[in-house]
Amino acid sequence: MEQLKQAIRERGNVLSDQVLKVDTFLNHQVDVNLMAAIGEEFARLFSESGITKVLTIESSGIAPSFMAASTLGTPLIFARKKKSLTMNNDVFVSSVYSFTKQETNDITVSKDFLDAGDVVLIIDDFLANGQAALGLIDIVHQAGAHVAGIGIVIEKSFQDGRKLLEEQGYRVESLARVHQLSEGRVTFVDELTTTKTK
Amino acid sequence: MEQLKQAIRERGNVLSDQVLKVDTFLNHQVDVNLMAAIGEEFARLFSESGITKVLTIESSGIAPSFMAASTLGTPLIFARKKKSLTMNNDVFVSSVYSFTKQETNDITVSKDFLDAGDVVLIIDDFLANGQAALGLIDIVHQAGAHVAGIGIVIEKSFQDGRKLLEEQGYRVESLARVHQLSEGRVTFVDELTTTKTK
Repeated sequence: MEQLKQAIRERGNVLSDQVLKVDTFLNHQVDVNLMAAIGEEFARLFSESGITKVLTIESSGIAPSFMAASTLGTPLIFARKKKSLTMNNDVFVSSVYSFTKQETNDITVSKDFLDAGDVVLIIDDFLANGQAALGLIDIVHQAGAHVAGIGIVIEKSFQDGRKLLEEQGYRVESLARVHQLSEGRVTFVDELTTTKTK
Repeated sequence: MEQLKQAIRERGNVLSDQVLKVDTFLNHQVDVNLMAAIGEEFARLFSESGITKVLTIESSGIAPSFMAASTLGTPLIFARKKKSLTMNNDVFVSSVYSFTKQETNDITVSKDFLDAGDVVLIIDDFLANGQAALGLIDIVHQAGAHVAGIGIVIEKSFQDGRKLLEEQGYRVESLARVHQLSEGRVTFVDELTTTKTK
């Protein structure tokens, strides 16, 4: 998605070979027009999938999912990283390990909002090692529902997430695929050219 | 806002005289169409205020703020309850006491996203004791910026929040004002009729 890649190039900040900071438009300050375009693109990509629910994870997944759910005409559910005070015990729970934070956290979704008839589009802001996506998939499966696919805003293609998800047969649609972060610069997968030697 | 009051009546859940659960449409499962209408209503109410930024707090503030920022043509900033890993130390911090959880938590906003020229619309999902709103106001003031007003989705009018904010001169616009939660039923402020004795 060219508009997104342009935002990453112009407004993203490469902190290291591993870390791309996008708090200028995605996960702290939010460019709502860009997020709306992203949501509409997810909706377009999964328009033929019979989606009944869009599932994301708080907080950074909410903005890019908003217009996806709106365009698809479905509710949006955001998984909780912390159980809320009014949440009862009728929840689906999955443990998600964060390689970055080196800690495991439970994510929860109330059983009221997913059931066996649901066809779920999972959306997240980043795909790195795929642990958050696998946690969300686990929750959808606990409900007996079907995962139609995973929509990702920014994929770090140099990490294992896509491979893990595709090996399990899931459709992964990433709107920007980062091949490399190096010396302050982002290289996208579709910018790689095959150089032939004579 | 009639559409919101109807959602509260039909899809809300009165857990006690103090607690209204709205995770069916606001803070876990999200009715994006209702949230869009709410955001547009905030934008209409503050259309003459010269808003340059919409500020909310993760996670439940994001959905009702999304269309407000979009309609006003401004960025949306969500204050972090936990400092993110990529956040540096150039942040505004305010301590917010939660009467419900009986704990104090810091909320943070990067200094990159608010400055003295900003006119800020603060949006939050609930107004109870006003502590979160006061924390957000504190952050706007640390930036030297101006608070145009506070937009609230659901106000618990039987708690002190509105009084505290109005005493300090702030404009408070709540789209649903709950007078009472009692015996599983919600009474809104504008449903109170003056009963005259003969």
